[in-house]
Amino acid sequence: MDAAIIRERLRELREAMQKEGIDFYLIPSSDYHNSEYAAPFFQTRAYFSGFTGSNGTLLVSKEEAGLWTDGRYFVQAAAQLKDTGITMYKMMVAGEPTILEYLKERMPEGSVLGFDGMTLAAETGVEYAKELQEKKIKFRYDKDLAAEIWKDRPPLPCTEAFVLPEEISGASYLIKSTEVRAKMKEYGTEVLFLAKLDDICWLTNLRAADVACNPVMLSYLLLTMEHAYLFVQPKAVTEEVRAYCRENGITVMDYAKTLAHMSGYAPTGDMLFDRSNVSYTVFTVLRQITLNRGHKLINRPNPTLLLKACKNETELRHTRETYLADSAVLTEFLYWAKHHAGREHLSETDIAEKIDGMRAQMDGFLDLSFDTIAGYGANGAIVHYKPEKETAAKAEEKGFLLVDSGGNFKTGTTDVTRTIALGELTEEMKKHFTLVCAAMLRLANAVFPYGCTGRNLDTYARAPLWAEGLDYQHGTGHGIGFVLNVHEGPQNIRWKYGQAQPEVALEAGMLVSDEPGIYIEGSHGIRTENILEVREWKETEQGRFLCFHPLTYAPIDPDAIDLAYLTAEDREALNRYHEQVYECIAPRLADEKIREWLKEVTRPL
Amino acid sequence: MDAAIIRERLRELREAMQKEGIDFYLIPSSDYHNSEYAAPFFQTRAYFSGFTGSNGTLLVSKEEAGLWTDGRYFVQAAAQLKDTGITMYKMMVAGEPTILEYLKERMPEGSVLGFDGMTLAAETGVEYAKELQEKKIKFRYDKDLAAEIWKDRPPLPCTEAFVLPEEISGASYLIKSTEVRAKMKEYGTEVLFLAKLDDICWLTNLRAADVACNPVMLSYLLLTMEHAYLFVQPKAVTEEVRAYCRENGITVMDYAKTLAHMSGYAPTGDMLFDRSNVSYTVFTVLRQITLNRGHKLINRPNPTLLLKACKNETELRHTRETYLADSAVLTEFLYWAKHHAGREHLSETDIAEKIDGMRAQMDGFLDLSFDTIAGYGANGAIVHYKPEKETAAKAEEKGFLLVDSGGNFKTGTTDVTRTIALGELTEEMKKHFTLVCAAMLRLANAVFPYGCTGRNLDTYARAPLWAEGLDYQHGTGHGIGFVLNVHEGPQNIRWKYGQAQPEVALEAGMLVSDEPGIYIEGSHGIRTENILEVREWKETEQGRFLCFHPLTYAPIDPDAIDLAYLTAEDREALNRYHEQVYECIAPRLADEKIREWLKEVTRPL
Repeated sequence: MDAAIIRERLRELREAMQKEGIDFYLIPSSDYHNSEYAAPFFQTRAYFSGFTGSNGTLLVSKEEAGLWTDGRYFVQAAAQLKDTGITMYKMMVAGEPTILEYLKERMPEGSVLGFDGMTLAAETGVEYAKELQEKKIKFRYDKDLAAEIWKDRPPLPCTEAFVLPEEISGASYLIKSTEVRAKMKEYGTEVLFLAKLDDICWLTNLRAADVACNPVMLSYLLLTMEHAYLFVQPKAVTEEVRAYCRENGITVMDYAKTLAHMSGYAPTGDMLFDRSNVSYTVFTVLRQITLNRGHKLINRPNPTLLLKACKNETELRHTRETYLADSAVLTEFLYWAKHHAGREHLSETDIAEKIDGMRAQMDGFLDLSFDTIAGYGANGAIVHYKPEKETAAKAEEKGFLLVDSGGNFKTGTTDVTRTIALGELTEEMKKHFTLVCAAMLRLANAVFPYGCTGRNLDTYARAPLWAEGLDYQHGTGHGIGFVLNVHEGPQNIRWKYGQAQPEVALEAGMLVSDEPGIYIEGSHGIRTENILEVREWKETEQGRFLCFHPLTYAPIDPDAIDLAYLTAEDREALNRYHEQVYECIAPRLADEKIREWLKEVTRPL
Repeated sequence: MDAAIIRERLRELREAMQKEGIDFYLIPSSDYHNSEYAAPFFQTRAYFSGFTGSNGTLLVSKEEAGLWTDGRYFVQAAAQLKDTGITMYKMMVAGEPTILEYLKERMPEGSVLGFDGMTLAAETGVEYAKELQEKKIKFRYDKDLAAEIWKDRPPLPCTEAFVLPEEISGASYLIKSTEVRAKMKEYGTEVLFLAKLDDICWLTNLRAADVACNPVMLSYLLLTMEHAYLFVQPKAVTEEVRAYCRENGITVMDYAKTLAHMSGYAPTGDMLFDRSNVSYTVFTVLRQITLNRGHKLINRPNPTLLLKACKNETELRHTRETYLADSAVLTEFLYWAKHHAGREHLSETDIAEKIDGMRAQMDGFLDLSFDTIAGYGANGAIVHYKPEKETAAKAEEKGFLLVDSGGNFKTGTTDVTRTIALGELTEEMKKHFTLVCAAMLRLANAVFPYGCTGRNLDTYARAPLWAEGLDYQHGTGHGIGFVLNVHEGPQNIRWKYGQAQPEVALEAGMLVSDEPGIYIEGSHGIRTENILEVREWKETEQGRFLCFHPLTYAPIDPDAIDLAYLTAEDREALNRYHEQVYECIAPRLADEKIREWLKEVTRPL
């Protein structure tokens, strides 16, 4: 983007600010629901700054403009902000001010901070309001200034919704809403307001494609003890969906009128909501309408969260089958990559397109579940790497290729990472690969008493790395949705938690990823990821124990294993897993050559 | 105790209650500082109820009397309360009311609850006050009714204090108080009130013997930026201590006048205190005097807590030497026990007296650091077992003997558990013993990045047990003092935390116990405990890593090891540990026979 264009856009923005009496204008990166991916409609920050990274906040005043982003984007942001007059501020770097610190220092007493409150997290807005109170800062959060300035703005995403049939979902809306209402009652509340899109989709058994990689629809849901109001874009509602909602007593309302409707809504009792999932604007409306009627607004995790996380038997059956099909395709891809990548002239994007294309051919394919990461060599060490056509590395006949990919299907959501050797490896690379393999298998084979959280279990995966002075700077595992988001709470596997991160015990029916890694900057990156299902193991006199059961069955490249770094138990675990891989996947491979190759790579070591 | 005597004492108590206008009178089990052991002076609950367990609260009204205790004491309490008219209420048993529930239900509106506020934890008093507000219950907490009724009450403990010289403590009071004042400043406070006895002793480098097994003195300390006031019993202050305090600018005040003095004290700024460590009476005084002056009372963990936990190099040097000496004596005891217990007519108390007597002969011995647990056979499965002369089991030539013991010395505080085979064992017993051995060694050999807490590390110890469907219902480790309490915070090793339990990262210089176990009710109990020192391991590009270093060197009975339950790594770890035990301890054994025996029991397996 030409810096002159950005400067002109900022000029227009400042003009609009002046007209509205706004002194500082803040542009976050979120959509209205804090989704993981914001649609083009919501790329306001990129429009006004030119910076296209996934995380960034723009702050504009009459004289200055600043953009805050994190370590992944310092290089990119510096390049994209050049000559725009926008200063980059590094997040989580000592000496650099946070947005709040900047606001507290620079905003004159009694001045006005503007932002589109629909795109600012309630938690952030509440914090800002509290911290800026002393300086008597006023908020103007009802104006999206981009609405007037951004002429060729893409439309709000709107795809046709569809019903996930009960033979797939395993539980009807009526059953789920009964469970949710029981929770509402338990919390002493009579009304629930849901803004989290995957929670709404889980509860209603509806799906769409309004957010990239997340089969959800832009919506809100108001649930009382007797009624349900689904706010959704009229164009998203097919005849099938309309009939389905009618049958289930769900009143369909216009998404565009959510705020207007809610502002006039009079709750009959205390209202339940999850502050970490609503925008500042929605929060202020909910606060006002409960206050008006003398009711309380109860901030708790959505009751849908834990119910959604514990998959029912039907969901598990479909998930298992979907992972077997996905694993077979991945195995075919690995065969292809081992034989072509590095030998032919293939770039990281070519490789990503290959696996994406193979998944797209699969039965019931809806979309990728996230952007495929294909990182060759040193790029494998960049944890959130996404290859771009212009800058993608070419695979060579040496070192590692890391591929982290997954799909959304009508019968499940997949996620898997394999790292493969494309040729010669150093001793250190093999050591690292082998330790990561051991780490993944140790967690996969853990058994543990009910009550354990990710804090307790993460040690299983990290212990073999820690013993060598190694570690990785990301969590070991996240929850996974069913025909929903690939990152789903509340469970996860990590050894440290931030203040706001919930810590819940693992329960039977939960899905978690198991994805340890080792990343050596400038050299190589390794990650091996299986998805695990939590199951009951056994109840003894000493307690009730749970275990994991793998959903993913794909080979772990034996070319990169150095047996010196596996204990006898680790080696046995790898051989046992590979035996299962062959058993489960061979019958699904049409190509005799690939079957033979699989036999070879899953041989006992 | 004759039930008639108890009934007479309750009659006198009720008479006093009526005179004072008290409707319900509560008698907790604590001393004025919530010490682990309450001196005979504080055994008011035992005096009025006849129940002598370590945990119990008596509640008396005109018509009724109830005693609350936990699962360890249900049998004993039922027997001791027989015919006294006191009802036992079981703590943490579904369907049984808690004390608070009982009070809420039974106390008439506007009635008066009496208790000695010096013996009730502030947290409890505050909770009661809040919960009983609705019923307008009034508190009368300035009266210890036992003072008038209990004629032959033992005196308040008062032993002579002594100074721990700097060559032992490693840091003078001046250095420590400077560190503490820096923390006070960091928290924005100008005054610190300390009620926790081991914190006061650590800070002042004074010791005494006012609490059984804890070498502390009954005291309070008021620290300002310029002054220090030590409230202590005049008889405890020797000429040496008086001179020491004078030199260090510590003003000695009368312990008996603490409340009177503090009530008239006018803090010059915000006051720091730790609500979990003060009595309800002290809390109300501190609240009042800060409120009077418009200052805040800041509730935070004592700044002394973490400083005390991280031992300095001098403390570590003495601790290591003390543990070597203690380990040598324990080894001699184990030799004796293997050759005499079960073969001669020895009871659990005989055995406990043997090890206690051996420790009492050691250089610098002050006291036991806790009551020795010597449990034979099924008694080993009772986690907090303490043998009593009348009921102690006789050791036989089979099964396990568990001995958990330790001492306080002028150069350190020890704690160690060994379980030994006295003869034939079942296959299951050997399996359990071997798994506990593996569990202890796995934690001892863990290396981990800085930032890990007991939540992360506990998994090392439990994993081998969990894998067999086994577990133990206590924490794996606690912190340990230096010539102070054997149980010391804030660090510990456990996989679950209660709400009020702090979670802190392990730091170099901390000491923790490593004591996994297996307890099979009615059959056998096994625990193996080493004390570990936290040390820096190394800093790599991937992080700063810590490790453990054992302080305890005593053999783990090879007669009870079944190699089938050790991995190759576990076996190697055991052999390596035993090699170190022999190397460190053999030179300290005067008796050639014991040296030879040690060589044999520490042979490589």
